Amino acid sequence: MAPAVGLARQTASPRTPGRPDTMPLITLTTDFGIGSPYLAEMKGVILSINPAAQIVDVAHNVPAQDIRSGSVILARVVPWFPPGTIHIAVVDPGVGTERPLVYARFDDQIVLAPDNGLLGRLAAKVKPGRIVHLTNSEHWLPVVAPTFHGRDILAPVAAQLTLGLDPDRLGTLQHELVPLPWPEPVAEPDTLVGEIVWMDSFGNMQSNITADHLAAFGPREELVVTCGSFHFRQVHGTYGDAKPGTPIALVSSSNHLEVAVVGGNAGQQLKIAIGDPVRVQRV
Amino acid sequence: MAPAVGLARQTASPRTPGRPDTMPLITLTTDFGIGSPYLAEMKGVILSINPAAQIVDVAHNVPAQDIRSGSVILARVVPWFPPGTIHIAVVDPGVGTERPLVYARFDDQIVLAPDNGLLGRLAAKVKPGRIVHLTNSEHWLPVVAPTFHGRDILAPVAAQLTLGLDPDRLGTLQHELVPLPWPEPVAEPDTLVGEIVWMDSFGNMQSNITADHLAAFGPREELVVTCGSFHFRQVHGTYGDAKPGTPIALVSSSNHLEVAVVGGNAGQQLKIAIGDPVRVQRV
Amino acid sequence: MAPAVGLARQTASPRTPGRPDTMPLITLTTDFGIGSPYLAEMKGVILSINPAAQIVDVAHNVPAQDIRSGSVILARVVPWFPPGTIHIAVVDPGVGTERPLVYARFDDQIVLAPDNGLLGRLAAKVKPGRIVHLTNSEHWLPVVAPTFHGRDILAPVAAQLTLGLDPDRLGTLQHELVPLPWPEPVAEPDTLVGEIVWMDSFGNMQSNITADHLAAFGPREELVVTCGSFHFRQVHGTYGDAKPGTPIALVSSSNHLEVAVVGGNAGQQLKIAIGDPVRVQRV
Repeated sequence: MAPAVGLARQTASPRTPGRPDTMPLITLTTDFGIGSPYLAEMKGVILSINPAAQIVDVAHNVPAQDIRSGSVILARVVPWFPPGTIHIAVVDPGVGTERPLVYARFDDQIVLAPDNGLLGRLAAKVKPGRIVHLTNSEHWLPVVAPTFHGRDILAPVAAQLTLGLDPDRLGTLQHELVPLPWPEPVAEPDTLVGEIVWMDSFGNMQSNITADHLAAFGPREELVVTCGSFHFRQVHGTYGDAKPGTPIALVSSSNHLEVAVVGGNAGQQLKIAIGDPVRVQRV
Repeated sequence: MAPAVGLARQTASPRTPGRPDTMPLITLTTDFGIGSPYLAEMKGVILSINPAAQIVDVAHNVPAQDIRSGSVILARVVPWFPPGTIHIAVVDPGVGTERPLVYARFDDQIVLAPDNGLLGRLAAKVKPGRIVHLTNSEHWLPVVAPTFHGRDILAPVAAQLTLGLDPDRLGTLQHELVPLPWPEPVAEPDTLVGEIVWMDSFGNMQSNITADHLAAFGPREELVVTCGSFHFRQVHGTYGDAKPGTPIALVSSSNHLEVAVVGGNAGQQLKIAIGDPVRVQRV
Repeated sequence: MAPAVGLARQTASPRTPGRPDTMPLITLTTDFGIGSPYLAEMKGVILSINPAAQIVDVAHNVPAQDIRSGSVILARVVPWFPPGTIHIAVVDPGVGTERPLVYARFDDQIVLAPDNGLLGRLAAKVKPGRIVHLTNSEHWLPVVAPTFHGRDILAPVAAQLTLGLDPDRLGTLQHELVPLPWPEPVAEPDTLVGEIVWMDSFGNMQSNITADHLAAFGPREELVVTCGSFHFRQVHGTYGDAKPGTPIALVSSSNHLEVAVVGGNAGQQLKIAIGDPVRVQRV
């Protein structure tokens, strides 16, 4: 399947007349908790600098300080946005320490985040372009609270980028992002061994095995999957293939092998957790 | 009381000069869970096609696959929006099966949803106009994941409608929507029998008995209400009429008879659940 | 530290050309619960009157009817928004009784809310300017549900203010807001005694003791803090100063003394609750 990037644009039509061609679009992904007033403070800062900014909440219920979950979400979501979108991401156990904040470009998308592995999954999908550590305090709020770099550094930098600020003025150019430790699936002679790496809001348990891994391992109709105490004789393409209540293995809308319960919640109903192994074999 | 539709517009003033007269407004109602990255993917698709679209989240905590709750929410909310608003609704246990997706017009509001009963309560309130099944894949994303029609079909169709796409090009014209099974209250000689059909976020328990049903049954000051082990000698007009902690029956802001606890949570504190009977009698 | 107001604007750059200089910006803070359809009804009313209004959700998970928590959030958040922003706040145990609704100006910010103490903490931070009770029903929806003044009064008034309505036409001028009962910290000869007044979404427990109170009491490096069974020999400036799992006392990003667990949740892990005393002593 083609990568997500660019898909949406194939259907793009001419823009509404009388509106600027590019909207200054900023997304927010954090572990602050939904409805946190800290988010509203960040939005206030952004809109004080550029009142025309349009702000989209991606997710604020990333499990607290769970860099890996945040990274999976960013890798899913970022490529779907229009060119020039600026994504602020804050999952930042190291706030207040010396870990740097970073500007990174991925194709036509821009991300501002702590450089702590949070961009690891996105970087595995789209090669990073320009990378800049945010060291130039000229573009921050005049007073920076040591516990809230999201509001005092990332928000004003994002807003100024939408107004045309040159990213090279943000700080020092880098060659690499801090990597994210990530379990790659292992192809043994008869078995492809991966693991559960993310649970979505329906309780679907996503593995680190992609449709490409499966295709390289064998024809889908010949594959069987084992996870926890469950043995799946079929890899489905959709939830609707089986009766409600049935546990199934399927390839999800993000092209990963996942374990789900039709019309149910695999995370609650099956005894499967993040980190559990997923084995694929040929029949 | 007059229906909600149009109320807001009676107070409408001239539009801001220099802004387009109609904003391309799209709302989202789903059971994806608040903060689901799936929502962000849909927003990315919409904004990639029309960066000027304004997106409003209605509710994403519809209980998973609960078509009836989703339907009650849409019937409440849709009529309050400005003319031409496009509402995407996804509560879709049948995703990936043959159930059709539908475009439906209700007065000056447009809804895109699976045709599975989800529009039933809205259709009971406002007669549907044009109904079109979405069969023309020309306006979808080029690759459609069988588990995510919201992102790959509804989002791009909505965005293109805001850019002027003719709805007749979406597919085949229909005469009817799939109905929603719905318990109507029954008027017996001495008793009007309804049931609890929805719980709001305060734990107020809403019945299927409307202010119109009550008015047809008898003068409000002569009515008594029974629900669970509670007997209410008065139908209130507001929560403020009684002391905090008191269970009351009242006519809600959506003109339905409901059971509430003043300053409390009826769903948690009274032993009343969705499906419980509500009886109204004359004293 | 300088007050938050104005901080963001020091970095403000010229506005995007071709966009109106001020966006009609409206924020919402309520105890309706995240994803409540009541919020969507309010947004529908606002956008029906001014389709160009930009709406920002601040928080909808204020604990039900908890005026004090709502007040702390407003005091934190309101000053960060651009001049002319209109903030609607609804935490309103008295809806349907005779308590008035109020328009109040705080510097260049405008708030619409029940006059029940909800603006108390903001008023303690920024002196209120013009105060008007909303008594003129000409600017409300024609039919007002006694249980939903947010939708039927505050939303249409806010939208009309963004279109230039003169606030003096809203009702009768007032000289004072209803005060919020609030525990001020007490400075005894050797001890400064405050209490926990708010828990944020990370479980950090914020006290009523500000950085200014601390500075007036003694040099920060000489202070020790006691709360619950915990004794803190240091007042930190950031979470990153100590090892994950360590309970600490620190001055938060809103300049209040708080108790936190590094990388954890103090509200869940320490036996500390809102209302617990916090004692500061000099070593």
